[in-house]
Amino acid sequence: MNEPASAAPEQRLLPTIHGPADVKALTPAQLPLLAQEIREEVIAVTARNGGHVGPNLGVVELTLALHRVFETPDDQFVFDVAHQGYVHKLLTGRGGDFFRQLRQTGGASGFLYRPESAHDAFGAGHAGTALSAALGMATARDLRGSGEHVVAVCGDAAFTCGITLEALNNVVTSTKRLIVVLNDNEWSIAKNVGAMAKYLNRLSTNPTYNKIHHDIEGFFKSFPRGEEMNRVYSKWKRETKDFFVESSLFEKFGLRYLGPVDGHNLDSLIKNLEFAKQCDVPVLIHVLTKKGKGLAAALTSPERFHGASPFDPLTGDSKKTPAGTPPNYQDVFGQAMVRFAQADPRVLGITGAMPSGTGLSRLASAVPQQFFDVGIAEEHAVLFAAGLATKGFRPVVAIYSTFLQRAYDQIIHDVALQNLPVTFCMDRAGLSPNDGPTHHGLFDISYLRCVPNAVVMQPRHEDELVDMLHTSLHHPGPAFIRYPRGGGLGVPIKTAPGLLPIGRADVLREGSHIVIWALGPMVQDALQLAARFERDEGLSVGVVNARFAKPLDRALLLRQAAEVPLLVTMEDHVLAGGFGSAVLETLNEAGSATDVVRIGWPDRFVEHGSSTDLLRASYGLSPDEIYARIVARASASAAECFTALREKRAATAP
Amino acid sequence: MNEPASAAPEQRLLPTIHGPADVKALTPAQLPLLAQEIREEVIAVTARNGGHVGPNLGVVELTLALHRVFETPDDQFVFDVAHQGYVHKLLTGRGGDFFRQLRQTGGASGFLYRPESAHDAFGAGHAGTALSAALGMATARDLRGSGEHVVAVCGDAAFTCGITLEALNNVVTSTKRLIVVLNDNEWSIAKNVGAMAKYLNRLSTNPTYNKIHHDIEGFFKSFPRGEEMNRVYSKWKRETKDFFVESSLFEKFGLRYLGPVDGHNLDSLIKNLEFAKQCDVPVLIHVLTKKGKGLAAALTSPERFHGASPFDPLTGDSKKTPAGTPPNYQDVFGQAMVRFAQADPRVLGITGAMPSGTGLSRLASAVPQQFFDVGIAEEHAVLFAAGLATKGFRPVVAIYSTFLQRAYDQIIHDVALQNLPVTFCMDRAGLSPNDGPTHHGLFDISYLRCVPNAVVMQPRHEDELVDMLHTSLHHPGPAFIRYPRGGGLGVPIKTAPGLLPIGRADVLREGSHIVIWALGPMVQDALQLAARFERDEGLSVGVVNARFAKPLDRALLLRQAAEVPLLVTMEDHVLAGGFGSAVLETLNEAGSATDVVRIGWPDRFVEHGSSTDLLRASYGLSPDEIYARIVARASASAAECFTALREKRAATAP
Repeated sequence: MNEPASAAPEQRLLPTIHGPADVKALTPAQLPLLAQEIREEVIAVTARNGGHVGPNLGVVELTLALHRVFETPDDQFVFDVAHQGYVHKLLTGRGGDFFRQLRQTGGASGFLYRPESAHDAFGAGHAGTALSAALGMATARDLRGSGEHVVAVCGDAAFTCGITLEALNNVVTSTKRLIVVLNDNEWSIAKNVGAMAKYLNRLSTNPTYNKIHHDIEGFFKSFPRGEEMNRVYSKWKRETKDFFVESSLFEKFGLRYLGPVDGHNLDSLIKNLEFAKQCDVPVLIHVLTKKGKGLAAALTSPERFHGASPFDPLTGDSKKTPAGTPPNYQDVFGQAMVRFAQADPRVLGITGAMPSGTGLSRLASAVPQQFFDVGIAEEHAVLFAAGLATKGFRPVVAIYSTFLQRAYDQIIHDVALQNLPVTFCMDRAGLSPNDGPTHHGLFDISYLRCVPNAVVMQPRHEDELVDMLHTSLHHPGPAFIRYPRGGGLGVPIKTAPGLLPIGRADVLREGSHIVIWALGPMVQDALQLAARFERDEGLSVGVVNARFAKPLDRALLLRQAAEVPLLVTMEDHVLAGGFGSAVLETLNEAGSATDVVRIGWPDRFVEHGSSTDLLRASYGLSPDEIYARIVARASASAAECFTALREKRAATAP
Repeated sequence: MNEPASAAPEQRLLPTIHGPADVKALTPAQLPLLAQEIREEVIAVTARNGGHVGPNLGVVELTLALHRVFETPDDQFVFDVAHQGYVHKLLTGRGGDFFRQLRQTGGASGFLYRPESAHDAFGAGHAGTALSAALGMATARDLRGSGEHVVAVCGDAAFTCGITLEALNNVVTSTKRLIVVLNDNEWSIAKNVGAMAKYLNRLSTNPTYNKIHHDIEGFFKSFPRGEEMNRVYSKWKRETKDFFVESSLFEKFGLRYLGPVDGHNLDSLIKNLEFAKQCDVPVLIHVLTKKGKGLAAALTSPERFHGASPFDPLTGDSKKTPAGTPPNYQDVFGQAMVRFAQADPRVLGITGAMPSGTGLSRLASAVPQQFFDVGIAEEHAVLFAAGLATKGFRPVVAIYSTFLQRAYDQIIHDVALQNLPVTFCMDRAGLSPNDGPTHHGLFDISYLRCVPNAVVMQPRHEDELVDMLHTSLHHPGPAFIRYPRGGGLGVPIKTAPGLLPIGRADVLREGSHIVIWALGPMVQDALQLAARFERDEGLSVGVVNARFAKPLDRALLLRQAAEVPLLVTMEDHVLAGGFGSAVLETLNEAGSATDVVRIGWPDRFVEHGSSTDLLRASYGLSPDEIYARIVARASASAAECFTALREKRAATAP
């Protein structure tokens, strides 16, 4: 790790910060030094581990100011998305090795996380939740009659999200005391979109307003503060704004608007927060920050440094991927979308603020008129697609599996019930190891399998993803394609994509003792297991690439169930209601008594960890353990054809 | 049915209206007469069948004006919630007997429904979707370069809903041509809440603004219309508003604001719609309507006549419930909430605009400080509850099963992942026969069973509902209670509610041949089936009140599976991933080969119908058919103990 150049180790402040009290004990002159050390630490750790470097570099001064003014855990900070909580972690006793193991097994979570610290009032990972949760906390405070402060720290992107806007509508009826910090950096992950972004931009760049604002601030500083004075002040301020620029949107929702405030000026931040603390109405402080401040490369490429893979801390260059690395599913998806959109003007790509993450940025560049970024607005994204589909278009909505949970009602009520041909590309299906439980995509098969008209599929490699996308664009109803983050198998992409028969599986390997039905990348694991069974146990093990979780290939499944005594299902998904459960249901309906071993994730929220392999191992899902479980179940089965196996095992026992 | 007094049958206009062209052919003087006939028809039919009488009486003139100005199906109307589409149905060829069979088997759906008519551009049933869907359609139109109009008709309540607000943020980037009719009646189902409602009220009641508005309208009428003139007009109008009243919220989102317009003045409505048609920017027309206009009782009790049960068309009195009718689950829930809230200040009730429907209105009256109505904002409702729960409160969120789909991500990401003690009361679980597919609550077990930490239960009767509510309030994590609309069994409510052991089922009847595991009201059906099996077949059939869909009573299930050759599961829920699927999974994990018959809804969207019994019969779920399926499966089982059954059946065969 690079040692910071700014201070000799013995003079460094950061190692002396064990909690908010230590922040408060610093002199004002020491704060910028600490800010600098924090930036160095954040850059050093994210350069090695990957992480949300840009958002955290932007909130260093803001987080310091919050901890100078408020008292956590008595006061509560609710950070929206909570990926900008690294600075908060460093100030609340989670520095040193714990922070250096950020996003690794045993180290700090990449998000705020209640079990990690009493200073984490509310965990997150998905955007737009802070204002609602903070309103709940403020209401609880009012009901109890206690005096603590509740501060919601929301990015401007949160205000493109319906939950924040629902909460905004409820502020005035819920409480008289709430502090909202609007951390305005003009970005969500991508550049923000829509009317709200334009509005905030006008608000923060109008020189008339800023001039008047500062003059009034100066004028009022010369008076002593009191209830009457505050009232006059706020009335004047409101009216000034209404006359000279547009009246504040936020004041229509009952929040007093303060700002814009320079988010890197500690003095100004602290004064505004102190003022907000005394207000007897809900307050919104509009803070302007620079995402990535302190890292030149992050300032010039905010999207790449939003959530970055490991990079060179000096140059910002990404770690080189070794030659021959298979392309990511995301790249292949983006390329396929460009191909299909160019060939058919009805094909449209829709993202909710994730053009790069999903790979749709390629479409945005190549065929911009067929690309739509609606902001962090998953519900609208799906409904917008439904509207387009009623008019003959073929919208493809690319949303991570975990974020698609946001649009569950739109999937059922608007798309599936009306049987509209919308394709859902559910990226990050399966485990997202470094991000953890807020980002794993482990529930989608269960929540979609119950939805009539839904077709749910998963490719075994990146070329099959293209086939499935092509297939979905020819299917007359809703289709869901789940696939993981990261690299495929490196197989070539066919020139002419295949049209897959809906609900038809692919037999990759015949077997007479056991057949493994695997979904997605689990197919590779299944092939390896089958080879090992044949080599070590002399068993004939078949492998089926299931392709479809719904509809299941019933005919093939029942035929095999009649021929072999044991089936195995493998999925990167929870077992409750998942793919294996679909197999059980199908066998049950047909009255088949064939035994089944289901391999998948248990009924637990899976924590973050250094790698998928490590997490699998800690849940009994390593290849060896899966092998052992199948062997045990095969032995337990009374079927004749396992006699050989049992005899062999008995003969080789010590 | 009452014949209208206003016109002799031979003079009536309504029977002559077979489509929008007939509406356009009427003289202006005939329109109010038609409006009157429509009101009489809506009142007569809803008085007999029940339905959304209030909302439809409010939009008679608005719907007439829409069909005078636009050309459906070329132009598209997207009605939000779509329960206010009765008038539209009557004007688009769906009158007569089809309308008189409203919400009955074979009759008109209570909502707009694409398969019913080409004039229904988009179906609905849940609120807040129209603006998003309309934006999709408008974008499709722009991409195609066609010229049709897209009109979203949204209630003011839709603007408390996050989806509408997400769409609002996207209007300006999506299209230059969209007409939004804001049908402002100040009500959702209950009185609207929050800042948006207050804002609309200020806008519609400010005399200064209205005066200026009308003067300007008059002034501009004297000029010929042209592009230049329109620009001057719109600029002046915008600036006038910004100076004399608050500037329009909607204009910040890029929509030109027109209004407020008297929603019962056909002339004014038509002029404003004609003007909107010519605009080259998105337009919002603010229309003021009276919910229930034309029915005195509906004007005085808007909430009762939102979606009404059958009533007396003259007096508005509800049909008397016969003496001895068991109380509704909703009443029992409301009473229990009052009891628990009075006993414990930590117990809070939260609704999303459904105080009456859920029964929480009792809490609102009795303990108002522990009651919260957040508007049609399910996502916020759940997050608000999560925030309250972090501070030691015990929030109870009462949301219909189907509407809770809106808050699925908040359930997973905010409540379950943080294991917060929030109780979810999922009303309308199971079939909602008259309302149909948008209102059935048939997916909740599947979408919740995969969520770690979730406890999912269903009471067999109303007293057990109270026990479950009590139990949930003592459980340290999230708990979900599903129960149907309507009457319980009439059992007495215990003075001291029972604390149920989590995951423990209740054996109601022992049996050695078959055991039926039933959930909720299915338990009564199971008891009747068991008695019939014993009487007609001499079989010993046990019945278990499962109580918990998650966690299942594993120990009891496995013990019984070892003792009887056939288990039956019964649930008012889809089979895919449901309660029966949980039973299969549990047996599979334990390696049990006991056969299971699962009774539940198939993988189809179930249409509306006159009654639950009729719908069940049409899906093979009548008691006789269930009986026959169990018999058939029992016969198919090779188990010895069914020999008696088979012999008996053979002996009695003709």
